[in-house]
Order: sequence, then C-alpha cells, then structure tokens
Amino acid sequence: MGTYIKDITDREVDFAKWYTDIVKKADLVDYSNVKGSMIIRPYAYAIWENIVSILDKEFKRLGHENVQMPMFIPESLLNIEKEHVEGFAPEVAWVTYGGNEKLEERMCVRPTSETLFCDHFKKIIKSYRDLPVLYNQWCTIVRWEKTTRPFLRSREILWQEGHTMHATAEEAKNETLRMLKVYEDFQRNYLAMPVIVGKKTDKEKFAGAEETYTIEAMMWDGVALQNGTSHYFGTHFAKAFGIEFLDKDNKLKTPYQTSWGSTTRMIGGLIMTHGDDRGLVLPPKIAPTKVMIIPIGKVDTELEQVKETLANAGITYKVDLADKTPGYKFAEAEIKGYPIRIELGRRDLDNGFTTIVRRDTLEKIQVHDLKEIANIINETMDKMQHEMYERAEVRRNSMIYTAKSYDEFKDIAMNKSGFIKINWCGDVACENKIKEDTGMKSRCIIKENTSDVCCVCGKTSKYEIYFGRQY
Amino acid sequence: MGTYIKDITDREVDFAKWYTDIVKKADLVDYSNVKGSMIIRPYAYAIWENIVSILDKEFKRLGHENVQMPMFIPESLLNIEKEHVEGFAPEVAWVTYGGNEKLEERMCVRPTSETLFCDHFKKIIKSYRDLPVLYNQWCTIVRWEKTTRPFLRSREILWQEGHTMHATAEEAKNETLRMLKVYEDFQRNYLAMPVIVGKKTDKEKFAGAEETYTIEAMMWDGVALQNGTSHYFGTHFAKAFGIEFLDKDNKLKTPYQTSWGSTTRMIGGLIMTHGDDRGLVLPPKIAPTKVMIIPIGKVDTELEQVKETLANAGITYKVDLADKTPGYKFAEAEIKGYPIRIELGRRDLDNGFTTIVRRDTLEKIQVHDLKEIANIINETMDKMQHEMYERAEVRRNSMIYTAKSYDEFKDIAMNKSGFIKINWCGDVACENKIKEDTGMKSRCIIKENTSDVCCVCGKTSKYEIYFGRQY
Repeated sequence: MGTYIKDITDREVDFAKWYTDIVKKADLVDYSNVKGSMIIRPYAYAIWENIVSILDKEFKRLGHENVQMPMFIPESLLNIEKEHVEGFAPEVAWVTYGGNEKLEERMCVRPTSETLFCDHFKKIIKSYRDLPVLYNQWCTIVRWEKTTRPFLRSREILWQEGHTMHATAEEAKNETLRMLKVYEDFQRNYLAMPVIVGKKTDKEKFAGAEETYTIEAMMWDGVALQNGTSHYFGTHFAKAFGIEFLDKDNKLKTPYQTSWGSTTRMIGGLIMTHGDDRGLVLPPKIAPTKVMIIPIGKVDTELEQVKETLANAGITYKVDLADKTPGYKFAEAEIKGYPIRIELGRRDLDNGFTTIVRRDTLEKIQVHDLKEIANIINETMDKMQHEMYERAEVRRNSMIYTAKSYDEFKDIAMNKSGFIKINWCGDVACENKIKEDTGMKSRCIIKENTSDVCCVCGKTSKYEIYFGRQY
Repeated sequence: MGTYIKDITDREVDFAKWYTDIVKKADLVDYSNVKGSMIIRPYAYAIWENIVSILDKEFKRLGHENVQMPMFIPESLLNIEKEHVEGFAPEVAWVTYGGNEKLEERMCVRPTSETLFCDHFKKIIKSYRDLPVLYNQWCTIVRWEKTTRPFLRSREILWQEGHTMHATAEEAKNETLRMLKVYEDFQRNYLAMPVIVGKKTDKEKFAGAEETYTIEAMMWDGVALQNGTSHYFGTHFAKAFGIEFLDKDNKLKTPYQTSWGSTTRMIGGLIMTHGDDRGLVLPPKIAPTKVMIIPIGKVDTELEQVKETLANAGITYKVDLADKTPGYKFAEAEIKGYPIRIELGRRDLDNGFTTIVRRDTLEKIQVHDLKEIANIINETMDKMQHEMYERAEVRRNSMIYTAKSYDEFKDIAMNKSGFIKINWCGDVACENKIKEDTGMKSRCIIKENTSDVCCVCGKTSKYEIYFGRQY
C-alpha cells in the first residue's frame, strides 16, 4: 500500500485521529491562524458547492426565494426574544469597535438570523396577500465554541437558513415537516446517508422554538450527527416583534413561523459515514470529480479517446500526469475518494482491456471496448451510490439497540457503540439521569405512545425515543 | 402614468433621491436595524445570483478554484504588511469578546483577505510544481464606512476576491490584466455597461499593491463608479509572510501575487446606468425574470399557450394575477425593469394580435401568431441588450471632456458633469490640487506619454489620465 497510505490512522485504532488524518490528507481543510476557524480548501469547497447547488434548486422548486441579511445583530435586537437570547448569548462573538470608535451598542456576529428576519418581516408583511413568505439565505454564522473539530463543530460555519411566515399554524407545521423531508431525501439520495427522523425533546430543542425536528445520522463509530434541523416557532417571535397581518376576515392576526438549517457539517458526515482506512469515499452523486484517470506508459491516443468519451457523457474527470509511480497515484486517488479510477495502462490495452476501479469496494472491472467506458462508469456509479447507502444502513441498523430496563440501558451504553431506543415518560429528570449516568443525550422522539413504561423511572411512558452519544 | 409612478423622483430633479426611490420601490433593498448594512431582498439577490453564476463559470473556465477563508483576522496577522494595515485599520470592525470572555487578541472582520490567503499560501506552496495557485472566494467583507448608500457604499459587502500566486512577475502581471479583462467583458456583455480601463495612481491604489488596475464606469449623472479592481502585488506580501518556493533551478524564490475583486456594487451600477423615471431597466442577459405577463380579461387558454411557449424556449417569466388594474400592473412591471412585458388582452387577441413592450424604449410590438412569441421576444431582447450598451456608451462619451489648461479644467469641473481627460506630470501635488480645487479624483491612467505638458503645473507630462467625481 505504500508509505503514503500508512500515514492514515486505522479507523478501529483511533477514529478521531483517523478523521483528522482524512481531513488533512484529502486536502479538505487547513487549520487557520484563527482558533476554531478552518480554511475550506478547493476539494472540500467543491463538495460544498455541489451540496448548495442541489439543495438550492430544491428550495427554489418549492417556492423559496434567497435573500441576504446583515451579518451583525445589535444587542437590543437579539434581546427581544428571551429564550432565544439565553440560548445564544454564551456563544456569540461581539463587535465593540468600528475603526477607532467604540460602538454605542455592541453587535454580535449572527449565530442564526431569526431576529433579523423578524425585524424585516415586520416591515414587509401587512396582509394575508403577503403570506406565505418563503425565504432562505446561504451565509456564514459564528458560534464561539470552546472545543472545535473541522466541519463538525467550528466557530464559523457555512450554512443555509430558511425562514418562513404563514397565515395559519397548520401551514407552518406542514412547512416545518416538508423541509425536514427535503433534508432527509437529500441525505439519502445524494449523500447516501440513512437518517432517523424525529422530534427533539424540550430540553434539546432550539432556543425559542416550540418544536424542533431533526435528522439524526449515525457515524461509522456509532456516534450521532445531527445533520439538519427544522423548527416550528408558532407565534413566539412574531409576537415579540409585533408582526401582524390583516387576514381575509379583516382581522389583525399574528403569523406562524418556521426556520430550518443545514451546514458544512454534512461534509463531516460524509467522511465519517463512508470513509475507510485508505481515505475518503465519496458517493458518486456528490463527488465533484467522478473519475481520476491514471495513465501508465505511452497511452496518449487512448487517453484522448477516454477524455472525449467522458466529456461527451458529462462525467467530470481529472488526469494524474504527475511524475510519480502508478502505485502512489492509486493511493492518492483513494485518499481523495474519487468514485472511479481508470488505470489506463499500455500493457492492459495491448491485452485488449482497461481497468476501472470502484473506490468503495476496490472492485476491478475490465472494460474491453473504450467506447463503452462512459456507459460502464455510469452504471457502476449508479450501483455504487445505491450500495453505499445500503451498506451504511445495514451498519447503522446493526448498532441500534432497544433497552427495556434501565440496567439494560446502562449495560448497552457501557459496552456498545450506537443508539439505544427506549420508552420514556417525557420527564426531563429521566433524560438528565441518562445524561449523567452514561453521557448519552436524547436524539429524537420517533413515536408517541402510552402503552408501555419508562425505561428509567418505570412510570407510564409517553414516547418512543432514541438516545446516543453525539458529535 | 398613475400615482404609483409619481412616487419616483425625476432623475433630472434629484438623482440621489431617484436612486433611493428605485432601490426601495423595485423591492431591491430594505434598510436594516444595523446602520450601514442592508437587507438584499429576493429580486436584487436574484440579480446577484446571475452575476455570481456568470462570473464564477468564467473564473473556473480560466482555472480558478473556489475556497473559503475565515471571516476573522487576528490583529497580529493584519499587522504583518504595513501599508496594508495602515490602509484598512481605520475602517475595520473589531471583535473583542467571544461569549462572556474578553479575547486575548482582538480580531477584525475581514475587510479583504490578502493576509489570510498569504498565511495559507505559506503552508501549501513549497515547489514550482505548486504554482500557479489560482484561488477565488465568494464571501462577505466589512468596511466601517461613515456614510453609506445601498449597493454603492455599505458596511457589509458581498463580493468575490481572487488571490493568485505565480512563479514569475510576468505571469502575475498577465494574470492581473487577464482578470481585469474578464471584468471589462462581463460589464460590457452582460451589464451593458461601457467602462474605461486603466491604472490607478499611486495615491489611489490599493493598500499594499504595487499596481492597481480598475474599470471605471460612468453613471447617468456623470459620476464615476469604480466597478472592479485587479491588483499586482509583486512580492510585498509574500516577503512579509515569508512565502518561498523551490524553483526548477533548485533555488528558493519568492512568488508573485495578484488579487482582484468585484462586488454587489455592480447592482448599483446597473441601476444608475440604465434606470429611468419609470424605474429600473435591466439588461435582458442579467435580468432574473425576462418577461412579465399581464393578462387582461378572459385569456386562460392563450395564457397557458404563452407560458408553455416561453418555458419551452427557456425564457423566465412571471404572470401578474393580482387584483389590480392593468395600468397599475404595467407601472409595477416598469418599476421592476423586466425587459419585456406581454399585454395579453382579450380585445387585442380578438383583433388578431398580442402586444409585447420593450422596457427600455417602451416600444410596443404586435405579435400576430402566439407560436412566434418566444422567437420575437428573444430577437427583441438581443436587440435591446445591444442597444442598451450603445445608448450608455453614447451618453458616456458625450460626458467625457478634454482639458488642455487648468483654467479649462476648472471651468469644465464647475459647469459640466462627467470625466475630464488631461495630461499629467505624475506628481501627487497636482493630483491633490485638483482634488482640493474641484473635488475630482483621478480615475485612471490610460496611457503613458511624454510629448505633452501637465494640465496643472505645465511641466512635462507623463500620463494621459481621467479625473471625475466618484460614488
């Protein structure tokens, strides 16, 4: 495998170290001089651009419009909704000087933009004719985290935040769930990541929200990654900001609100769901470059033919012409996780074939007619996309446990990685007890039920809920 | 014209007021609670998305890769290049607290990212094989301006900044001019804006640059808008940051650097170049919505036919179905500057035609066969795009003056709007004198010459240069 590969720590040995190795060696990130902020390098940014492009198209298809809010929030504006400011105040960055002058009122760099949107909504919403307002913005937010990890938890985050206002609670609730479904489908269909969909407990919900829904992915090591959230606000913010509209019945009413967001964290999820000991493995549908061509020997004519065939089929590719050994180039292509590598070798060609290699399984496929190479690659990538999802789901399911008693819960929590499904009374005391005893947090409620008993206290249970450790 | 239109101040009466009227009434911007920051509303953001999409494609075609740098710059990092920090320090926003803790070192919100890129370049550039590095980022920057105007001068700006490193000075200089040409072509071909291309004087160049090139547009009122700049840095930053590479000859060398940027200011340029007393006029190639269809009477069948025809031809459109009079809708479509409006009226249809109206000239064109409407609209938009450029150029040229003596210069400066072309000795004293006497700043040097005399001091002139007032 060569020394290059050896530099990646084995997943089984130290998953955290493996992760940072991948992030560095696949040229995804460079650490910056600014603690907790990362430099997103071209390869990772190209993945992000693909994510943005697919999600943005879907948002627009559903009628959302993009806008851009200021990045600064005056302290007084942040203070308007109490739960919200209490949730965010400990982790915001404060601007106190503009040039050489001290500001009369300090401003935070937005940790999220509900307050800014509400301030704007108050001005543009007058009548039922103005509703629904379906807005989204792509921007950067800042959360002053103590401990940071590239993509997973950083002080600066690239994300999108949708903010919508509706005439009725029902419509806003539908929007909350509709956008959650967009995230779920995107993760499944593009990132090849299975997710558990559910509702956060009151303890874990977003600061200021009435209900927070989440998609919870499980990483290779059994740890949860909250990979997208959708919030129903009811009229909390609208009332605090005095937003009203004249309804069809000529009465002034308060509109109902949602917000929903997803971030560059999804790139972290991709790495930790699909990566292996050789490097990154990218699902074909999200990979910026689908194919790496590695010419071996004198293959100029065939190289031109392959390039033209791929270009005509709309398959993105790169050619590795560096002055390095084929083995080294194979290893590099594996680290970067290009879905397909073409080993375009003189000797193989003389023997009547060319080899393509699937990144996920490392399966080698012989192509006997170069004219067919694009078709075979497309078929292989479709299969790969599908199988990557299946594999992730099988692994995820093998790490989901059900605990009927609290002893059983603690036993699983101590000895296994993964999620634990339990019945729960809904009392925050039981939720806190689990956290204190095992370090596990509630992931999401997936079902309301009353026919069982709480795994912790033994009283009547209200919910079926997942617990797990989290990134 | 109806009361709606009357709310726009006449251009001739008060151009500044006219501008802010357009910005508000075309729903481009909302003023935010954050002084000097604006909310970019969906219609303006869609224009920006078009600008981004076209420029980004061109950057990528030329080999540039997108990255994302942190938004914060630690003070010590900003301080590394002296001229640079002196240029920017008075207008940066300082973050001093993270959560409740005072930062050990304050950080500014990036006013531009040369220092961040250099810090990164130092780590990734080792050998001539790593060069050139051709990077770009789309992001937000902050400049703590005292006086602000939407799009033209604001505290927060959406922009792109290209940052490149090259093995030789020649290559870097070529890159500087190549990207300047990209801006020039984009302004001409998409924004229908003629620009003067040249070099900034030492007084007006970018803080830390060796040479700054600019594209200078002239607005309807004769005032200049610097609408894109491209900088050659030589090795100033590279030396300050200790960036070196091992060249082919096995010697350590310092690479040569460029940066170039364009911003949401271009939207301001569009407004002030093409807008008229009825509202915004958007060049077809940059308009997010090409056609507004206004149905009059019972025209359901024909409306479906037109929508399908436009959709099949890839022409973006909207339909105004609001409960308002046709006249009101015409006025609204004019304020928004949609290139084409279709008046789809029952009476006209019964008489065998449909009317389309060009926004720039308000020319009405009868379409006698609805099947032809997409073709006619495409032809009309091509013509419109071309003629909008021509008209802007004619107007611009009519406001360019040449002054041979300083008395003549002052006379023109006092009595006319526009640019004044002069010969100049190159001495900053003469440049300053013009500024003090007339308020005009140098726009750009367009030619080096020695065969004439300086318009101000009468000594031998070095340059042919434009002066003008600026936004």
